[in-house]
Amino acid sequence: MAESRGTRERIVEAAVGLFYEKGFEGTGMAELLIRAGANSGSFYHFFKGKEDLLSAVLDWYQAHLEPILIEPLRAQTPDPIERIFALLDGYRQRVLVTGCTYGCPIGRLALEIDPARVDVHAAIAKNFTGWTGAVERFLKDAGDRLPRGLDRAELALFVLTVMEGGVMQSRAHRSIEPFDASVRQLRHYFRHLEAEAALRGSKARRKVRRKPGRKPGFQPSPERQPPARKS
Amino acid sequence: MAESRGTRERIVEAAVGLFYEKGFEGTGMAELLIRAGANSGSFYHFFKGKEDLLSAVLDWYQAHLEPILIEPLRAQTPDPIERIFALLDGYRQRVLVTGCTYGCPIGRLALEIDPARVDVHAAIAKNFTGWTGAVERFLKDAGDRLPRGLDRAELALFVLTVMEGGVMQSRAHRSIEPFDASVRQLRHYFRHLEAEAALRGSKARRKVRRKPGRKPGFQPSPERQPPARKS
Repeated sequence: MAESRGTRERIVEAAVGLFYEKGFEGTGMAELLIRAGANSGSFYHFFKGKEDLLSAVLDWYQAHLEPILIEPLRAQTPDPIERIFALLDGYRQRVLVTGCTYGCPIGRLALEIDPARVDVHAAIAKNFTGWTGAVERFLKDAGDRLPRGLDRAELALFVLTVMEGGVMQSRAHRSIEPFDASVRQLRHYFRHLEAEAALRGSKARRKVRRKPGRKPGFQPSPERQPPARKS
Repeated sequence: MAESRGTRERIVEAAVGLFYEKGFEGTGMAELLIRAGANSGSFYHFFKGKEDLLSAVLDWYQAHLEPILIEPLRAQTPDPIERIFALLDGYRQRVLVTGCTYGCPIGRLALEIDPARVDVHAAIAKNFTGWTGAVERFLKDAGDRLPRGLDRAELALFVLTVMEGGVMQSRAHRSIEPFDASVRQLRHYFRHLEAEAALRGSKARRKVRRKPGRKPGFQPSPERQPPARKS
């Protein structure tokens, strides 16, 4: 039992590596079995085929997101916004150590895999949501440093957009510059958002001071609220 | 001569279609020849192989960028910043008409093609630069509506980043929402940039008014400039 679990893991990890290096279409079954050190009998014991392996690979990424990508950020800095930029800096390092050939493995599958494979795209989307969910939690931790009305989930999605678009252009240009430029623009946007929040915060405080009759946190009494509309 | 030029074009256009539908690796020579209505003899008259076709496909996209994507924007709206959002809206339409399965063909090749194919990645980068160059011209046309110190080339690259990241997530989620969310955040950023430019502009005007001795457009005389550094 322990042995067979080891074989399945070896196959999945070989697929993680090969799909990353050569893409899904570019990976052959023969080289997959060689890298995993498995024969085709044990492969078909666990998987129906290469297609079936794709879900296992995406589950692997999903399971590794929190311990490998997110958890270390908490030790790196206590500042929730800086944690987001530290996450992006992790991608910067990946771009650099690969000589600017890095491509996000999930992003590559998103663009490569046939849209007809609805199950695979759902698993890709789940990976994206895992990533943006972690960023959204950091954005919520930032509290009133960001504008109150700002949709945190939407901004988190935007951070992923910036990472993916930056990585893609750096790979094509074989240069860190497009990635760095994208993150600089995002940083500039965050500075504006923080300034917007600070400005609105101070305006709100002035408003409260100007109307001494109204206590902060004042709520209109129920009878003064507009009646609920009947549909 | 006219006939043979027609054959080459048919092969390139078939490849444009198939690489888009199935990716580069996923496209077989046999289906390529069938779609182009060409035999392998005429194929090898023009191309050394499928690899060689990739450059022709990227040249095709490069040649069609200005007439198909950029030129129509000028008729759509006179506002240079709105032209950029109209360009993004064109991608929104592509996402919608494909049932949210659209993937930018250049972006897909950027992530699919082996980085060892340096020539192909240079051609992909050239396509990206053509796109961002057009956006940069619109940003320059926007003049002092954007902050003076803002790097227009960098912001143009950021716009491409947002398009690519938004398209990728919409494809995975099979929903227009991630694309729309990304563009909304970019729009919010632009509004901040315009406000920043307006604020600095009015501050600069106040400064000029406060110092009547200095004429607007004052330049230090040549002898007051720091001497050119010898290398």
